[in-house]
Amino acid sequence: MKVWELGEFGLIELIAKTVGKATRHDLILGIGDDTAAWRTDKSIQLGTTDILIQNIHFNLDIATWRELGWKALAVNISDIAAMGGTPSFAMVSLGLTPETEVDNVVELYRGIKEIASKFDVDIIGGNISRAPVVIIDVSLIGKASDALLTRSAAAPGDQIAVTGYLGLAAAGLKLLKSKRKLDSKTTAFFREAHLRPRPRVAEGQILVQHGVRAAIDISDGLLSDLTHVCKASHVGAKLWINKLPIHALLRSAFKKDWLRLALSGGEDYELLFTARSDVIAKLTDIMSSPLTVIGEIVSDAPGQVTLLDEQGKAIKWDETGWDHFKSPQRGKR
Amino acid sequence: MKVWELGEFGLIELIAKTVGKATRHDLILGIGDDTAAWRTDKSIQLGTTDILIQNIHFNLDIATWRELGWKALAVNISDIAAMGGTPSFAMVSLGLTPETEVDNVVELYRGIKEIASKFDVDIIGGNISRAPVVIIDVSLIGKASDALLTRSAAAPGDQIAVTGYLGLAAAGLKLLKSKRKLDSKTTAFFREAHLRPRPRVAEGQILVQHGVRAAIDISDGLLSDLTHVCKASHVGAKLWINKLPIHALLRSAFKKDWLRLALSGGEDYELLFTARSDVIAKLTDIMSSPLTVIGEIVSDAPGQVTLLDEQGKAIKWDETGWDHFKSPQRGKR
Repeated sequence: MKVWELGEFGLIELIAKTVGKATRHDLILGIGDDTAAWRTDKSIQLGTTDILIQNIHFNLDIATWRELGWKALAVNISDIAAMGGTPSFAMVSLGLTPETEVDNVVELYRGIKEIASKFDVDIIGGNISRAPVVIIDVSLIGKASDALLTRSAAAPGDQIAVTGYLGLAAAGLKLLKSKRKLDSKTTAFFREAHLRPRPRVAEGQILVQHGVRAAIDISDGLLSDLTHVCKASHVGAKLWINKLPIHALLRSAFKKDWLRLALSGGEDYELLFTARSDVIAKLTDIMSSPLTVIGEIVSDAPGQVTLLDEQGKAIKWDETGWDHFKSPQRGKR
Repeated sequence: MKVWELGEFGLIELIAKTVGKATRHDLILGIGDDTAAWRTDKSIQLGTTDILIQNIHFNLDIATWRELGWKALAVNISDIAAMGGTPSFAMVSLGLTPETEVDNVVELYRGIKEIASKFDVDIIGGNISRAPVVIIDVSLIGKASDALLTRSAAAPGDQIAVTGYLGLAAAGLKLLKSKRKLDSKTTAFFREAHLRPRPRVAEGQILVQHGVRAAIDISDGLLSDLTHVCKASHVGAKLWINKLPIHALLRSAFKKDWLRLALSGGEDYELLFTARSDVIAKLTDIMSSPLTVIGEIVSDAPGQVTLLDEQGKAIKWDETGWDHFKSPQRGKR
């Protein structure tokens, strides 16, 4: 059945059924009224929104509808994680062509629901509309304790560290777009990195509990996101190329461009943060995910990131990361 | 200058400048970090989201960018009004073609800012992205006291009332799309009704303070929205056609279809509510905007709206209102 055959209100009912019963005790009204409503305590509330547009952010030849649903919510959860918060309520604005199969919409919401359940998020509302391409815009509300991880709190003398590995998501996209064949296990590994990112919510909370105050999630790419931190904090950064956490599979499967993928690839949704070395040493002991020190914050050249090779010599690097309008391909990725 | 010449991050800076300094005391972090952050008390929080898509919801031949900005936020504020709440924080997801003039984006945000200031709303974040058409998706957070206006609280014996006039916005759209010329004052009146709706926030709060519990804002059209209330409340409704608040200008300028515009037109963003007759009598005295009783809630035929003529005879009416996928023109309006 097509979306136009079922109609807007039939589709809303089906979506509400797919999403299922809300489970959070602080929710008062979910899908079905003019707004959603929830009870708050005196904590800090967080809000973020991120849009995925067909043929700009995703391609239906590459991603399944369920993967899209996962990813649309995951990228927003990652923003909450980068503040040291926990996500709570999501609203979804959906644009669909009338010819869209209803089954695909259900699959999309199954993907959203899957990651929502994992992170105790309720889907509390949204809207659907006719559109020339598929549009998935998620707004997410979260909570934080009194301390936050911000982009503006990096200080000279801080070390720069990152969770997990870099460049895997961009490598996954490259692989999916090419006709290149790797063994099925390796392919699945890179596909998952690109289409099912795991937001670092638990890690963000450990960071904030241990006194870390400066962080960002890596969505535009390491260089671009670190530059955001440097600009917001009015500091500079030195990055040691030989210290970057490069997964063995990335190095072996992308011999020519693993470094470019790690520096500028984007969409890894790992956390980049800065803190004093003793704090990071302690975190390395208690964190279950990999944690790697990759550079340091300096007071000179504010707003700039300097790349250093093994000998400590500065390297010139042209490509910084993703700009939706200025990128060479003007937004085609 | 085009959007692609300025680039994503230049545009974000310019938008932040256009939006200006946030003024709400409960805001902690606005534009510029991974999420926005605000402080809450123990009130109920409300959340809503609504998307405007070029050539579906608006046409750049008809609306100015500033009017679009106003309307994109207005339709969301109206949802908060329909709950009896006050709006507080807005996030904006923007999709733009790279060829969009930067000046137009600034105008759009001026329109957003204009209505935001009027209703004490801060623009606290969002994102911009390349898109095949212009997309404006606003998410809005609001507050409510312990009582809410919901769709599910209508009870048999309630009268049905509506603020303001019906059909003006749809008449405005019809006029703007046609080559018909009316005098400039009348044209401006209908244009304003379509492009600069005034959400009924103060009215919604008066309703909730006086014990009203059932309301909806008229976005899809009177019949469609009243049907939503009937379905959610498991009641029926009788609507007296000769009681509808029809503006004299609508009746004179749209002699043939003023009734259709009033019943099915949509986008008036007036409040439709139900309450006991003594409550409504009291409200009529204190409310500064027009308030009209147009029908009553009944226990039979739950989920259905019956239209009655002056003699109390049921009238058959085919067109209910707006469905994004099922409408005859399949979403073209």
